[in-house]
Amino acid sequence: MKPREIAQTRAAAAALLRKARISVTPNELDTMEIADLGLGDIKHMGLEIIVYENNDRYCAKELVLLPRQICPEHRHPRVNGRNLGKKETFRCRYGEVYLYVGGERTPRPKARVPLKYKRFMTVWHEIVLRPGDQYTLPPNSLHWFQAGDRGAVVSEFSSTSTDEHDLFSDPRIRRVGS
Amino acid sequence: MKPREIAQTRAAAAALLRKARISVTPNELDTMEIADLGLGDIKHMGLEIIVYENNDRYCAKELVLLPRQICPEHRHPRVNGRNLGKKETFRCRYGEVYLYVGGERTPRPKARVPLKYKRFMTVWHEIVLRPGDQYTLPPNSLHWFQAGDRGAVVSEFSSTSTDEHDLFSDPRIRRVGS
Repeated sequence: MKPREIAQTRAAAAALLRKARISVTPNELDTMEIADLGLGDIKHMGLEIIVYENNDRYCAKELVLLPRQICPEHRHPRVNGRNLGKKETFRCRYGEVYLYVGGERTPRPKARVPLKYKRFMTVWHEIVLRPGDQYTLPPNSLHWFQAGDRGAVVSEFSSTSTDEHDLFSDPRIRRVGS
Repeated sequence: MKPREIAQTRAAAAALLRKARISVTPNELDTMEIADLGLGDIKHMGLEIIVYENNDRYCAKELVLLPRQICPEHRHPRVNGRNLGKKETFRCRYGEVYLYVGGERTPRPKARVPLKYKRFMTVWHEIVLRPGDQYTLPPNSLHWFQAGDRGAVVSEFSSTSTDEHDLFSDPRIRRVGS
C-alpha cells in the first residue's frame, strides 16, 4: 500500500472510533494495523485492527470496518495439540455488520460483494449484528463479514491470535499488515 | 440484598453504561450481576457485571463501578494443571479507575477506603486507568480497585472465569451474585 492510502485509511478508521465513542491511545492509533491482505484494494477488502492484548491465554481486539469494507472468508485451523484453532466472539459496538457462516444460505443477503471476489465467499448463512449483538464462532469454521453503509466497530474477544495460521479462501490473500 | 436495592443499583449501572455509550441488550441489563459479595454494602463494596462470553478458552465482561464503589482485594489462584489461575486485562472505557497491585506503596493514593475495610487492602501500588488505558495482571496476583467520583466502566478480557475459585482477603466475603 502507498503511504498516502495507509494514512487516509487510518484517519477514516480513527473517525469511526470517535463516532463509536471508543477511547484509544495515540499510540494505538499510530500502530493500528491497516490490513489490505495483499489484495491492494483496501476500500473494498480488508479491515483496520487495534490489538489491545494478545497473550498465551486470550486476545482482545477492536476491529474497524469502513463503509461496506469486507473481511474476506477465512478460518482458524488447529495450530497444535494445545491450540485447537482460534475460537472468537464478535460483539458489534457501532454500525451494522453482516456476518456469514456455514449453514443454510440466507435468501437476499445484505452483503454486497464485488463480482471478482464473490467466488471466494462460499458460506452464506447471514447473521446481522447491531450494537450490543454478538456471535461466537467455533474453531476452524469458515466466516467472512461486511460492514453496512456507515461502517462498523466490532470488539473481538478470542483465544490467542496467531494470524499466520489463518487460512483464506482466496489464494491471492497474504496475511500481512502495513 | 433487598429487591429494591438491587433494582436501584441495576438502574444506576445502566445509566453509567449509557453515559459510556456502550450498547447492551435488554436481556444483558436484566441479568447483569449485582455483586455485593455478601457484605450487604453495595454502595461502597461490590460491582456490577455483564458477562459477554465465558467459555473454555476465554472470557469477556463489562464491569461497572458506581462512584467510589470498590471491588475488594482478591486473587485468582491456580485451578488445576490446565488452568494456572485467571489472567486478566482491565481496559478503562469510561470514568477513572484506581487499581492497586503488589509493588512499592504509592504515597497519597487516590482511593478512599472506608475504615472498616482498610485492613483487608494489603497491596497499595497504584495504577490510574483513564479511558483507553489498560493493565494486564499476571495470574494469582493480589489486586483491588475503586472507581473515581463519576463511576467507571471497565472492559475485562481474560482467560476462563471461575469465580468460585477467587480468594478474597476479607474472610467475610462470599462470591455470590444477585
